[in-house]
Amino acid sequence: MLPKNGLLDRRAFLAGSAGLVSAAVWAVPKPNEPWRSGAGRPMSPYGAPSQFVALERLQIIGHPLAPEAGASSTPLEQLNGTLTPNSLHFERHHSGIPDIDPRQHRLEIFGNVKRPLSFRYEDLSRYPLLSKILFIECSGNSYANTLPKPMDQSAGELNGLFSCAEWTGVPLRVLLEEAGYDPESDWVVAEGADASGMNRSVPLDLVIEEGMVALYQNGEPLRGEQGYPMRLLVPGCEGNLSIKWLRKLEVRKGPAHTREETSKYTDLSKDGRARQFSLRMGVKSVITAPSGKMVLPNHGIYEISGLAWSGHGAIESVEISADSGRSWVSAEIQSQPGEHRPVRFRLPWKWAGQTAVLQSRAYDSSGNRQPTRAIAMADVAPGLTYHYNGIQSWQVEPTGRVRNVYR
Amino acid sequence: MLPKNGLLDRRAFLAGSAGLVSAAVWAVPKPNEPWRSGAGRPMSPYGAPSQFVALERLQIIGHPLAPEAGASSTPLEQLNGTLTPNSLHFERHHSGIPDIDPRQHRLEIFGNVKRPLSFRYEDLSRYPLLSKILFIECSGNSYANTLPKPMDQSAGELNGLFSCAEWTGVPLRVLLEEAGYDPESDWVVAEGADASGMNRSVPLDLVIEEGMVALYQNGEPLRGEQGYPMRLLVPGCEGNLSIKWLRKLEVRKGPAHTREETSKYTDLSKDGRARQFSLRMGVKSVITAPSGKMVLPNHGIYEISGLAWSGHGAIESVEISADSGRSWVSAEIQSQPGEHRPVRFRLPWKWAGQTAVLQSRAYDSSGNRQPTRAIAMADVAPGLTYHYNGIQSWQVEPTGRVRNVYR
Repeated sequence: MLPKNGLLDRRAFLAGSAGLVSAAVWAVPKPNEPWRSGAGRPMSPYGAPSQFVALERLQIIGHPLAPEAGASSTPLEQLNGTLTPNSLHFERHHSGIPDIDPRQHRLEIFGNVKRPLSFRYEDLSRYPLLSKILFIECSGNSYANTLPKPMDQSAGELNGLFSCAEWTGVPLRVLLEEAGYDPESDWVVAEGADASGMNRSVPLDLVIEEGMVALYQNGEPLRGEQGYPMRLLVPGCEGNLSIKWLRKLEVRKGPAHTREETSKYTDLSKDGRARQFSLRMGVKSVITAPSGKMVLPNHGIYEISGLAWSGHGAIESVEISADSGRSWVSAEIQSQPGEHRPVRFRLPWKWAGQTAVLQSRAYDSSGNRQPTRAIAMADVAPGLTYHYNGIQSWQVEPTGRVRNVYR
Repeated sequence: MLPKNGLLDRRAFLAGSAGLVSAAVWAVPKPNEPWRSGAGRPMSPYGAPSQFVALERLQIIGHPLAPEAGASSTPLEQLNGTLTPNSLHFERHHSGIPDIDPRQHRLEIFGNVKRPLSFRYEDLSRYPLLSKILFIECSGNSYANTLPKPMDQSAGELNGLFSCAEWTGVPLRVLLEEAGYDPESDWVVAEGADASGMNRSVPLDLVIEEGMVALYQNGEPLRGEQGYPMRLLVPGCEGNLSIKWLRKLEVRKGPAHTREETSKYTDLSKDGRARQFSLRMGVKSVITAPSGKMVLPNHGIYEISGLAWSGHGAIESVEISADSGRSWVSAEIQSQPGEHRPVRFRLPWKWAGQTAVLQSRAYDSSGNRQPTRAIAMADVAPGLTYHYNGIQSWQVEPTGRVRNVYR
């Protein structure tokens, strides 16, 4: 076996003129370039991907009786960098996407406040704004990896209820202070304007310290499927908390124990007890290349690359193993780490046709290490599992086919 | 006149419970919310903006005889944060957008190299990649502000040949080392695969140290209008250098003196001499709100907000004036500064109906300060002006109308 099953040190690899990828040769036939013989398409108001790029959200699954209730996933393996284009941000709807006329929409703050307030969309855009690059992850992301047998799926199909954007909005502290919130209260109940009236209880401290009413995503106003005209954003916490189409915020004592925090989005243990309000998403990473359902075309150097994030702080480091976790090598982190901000990690790998199990594990600034699947599943009762953050294992077979496996 | 004509300190403003925006009241009529009465739209493969958001690239100007040769601008005043969605990134084409089949495209590296190489698209995606958030600015951006009289235009119409994205690509050093470039050579000539065969000379040092062959923009593969399947990216330099649809890189001694670096993209001085290869874009900032053609609806608090960037390093600080430059206040910078990475700046402002001229000026890590218009125009001969980075002045009239003015 190659040392560390082929993992290379990225800095040494890039510094040396030896060990190059050598995927290019001069002797390839000169291509036909019909597009060089005449003028191309003119400018346009709003661009679209090239006709040669097939980019789609994956596994668009609605309920058979209500196709509006379901989810779609980001095709992580087709993307690179850290951001998700708005058109490919994952979706999770409980009653479809309402097309809201912003002139007919209000955000009401009431309950234990001195001055109940009602904000129009145009009012909010005059408030001080804040911009942050943040992930949103569905609490049920990677659920398939909690099933007894590994599904032969892609990185996006398995883990794509995770996306990242630059969010811009009004810090909720500003709006709650304007309403004069009761400091003795400890929870806020947020409600959306979709037909399901999605609502969740959020600790008041969390809302005051980190919450925002998001108005822009990656520069432009929110898309309908992301909550236009406005959504709650609670960074680092399960996506379900970031209520879309936000219409109400009630300040109160105690949580409301809504449907979405009792029958769902709770963690059932083997002893029959359930954890409620386990809101922060754990430290996690996923290798997006090579990843599930890909086929490596030939032997040689590949870049192992993926995403890491944590709801408990910033990513501090990521390690990669090519031998099922026997040896680990530090990956290079390629984007500025930050609180609840995903990073892209990279490491070169030499594949000589050997079987290899590729894994990544992330460490965050709160001292957490991403657990193995066995540890992550240790106290999980059978059924719908939330908050799964175990290590994702990809097996590269001698044919080059990559497959989801459990290790 | 109000002190500093109404400019407030952002930290003091946010810390105080006094001085709130108070745009919201409880007594507004409850809106009609027809979208709450039934299920909304289901999930979709590739999203689009809300029907209530009119987002378009501005001033799509092609040549009357060749509509494919022209430009379109980013609507800066409709965006927030720092990133530009790919669909709204500015365009500048010399012969339209070629629809390139990536299987029929090659990138050739030749000239003064030991091993001329020809790369297929699929080869490049196996190389070590790099991700960076960077601006691209057309050398002719803000040209209208060099004309004798100020045009009554919006921030995007005037300054929108400027956009920002997270770019991911192969560092050119890796490819040039693999080809074995001659270290005695000092220039590279890059050529695109559009029908105009756009080509430019780039200093070899610059390409080795900072250049990349970009494959992804904001996560997804490049759009056609941004150079799909690959473009040269020379961070911090005039956009024209970042050759789209990159097909050739020739290593050589001396520049090629192509059409685009002789008859165009040069700076003509009043004494009749011209500067060539003034490649880096100067330190610059633009207030995007309040900005040209907007109308402030009523008196009260507004957030002054805009973008700042520099081709000579990172942005260190931004100051704002509301009184034509007599007094200045430090704005808050809201995104992580970085080399050639734009920042969003913000400052609250109290408008009591007074006339005000709003200006911003940026400082970069190389010690540059953005010049006034007078200084920026001091040695510019009449004609097509490139590299203009003078301070943008917006006059707020007592009616609330905002207008481009020269100060």
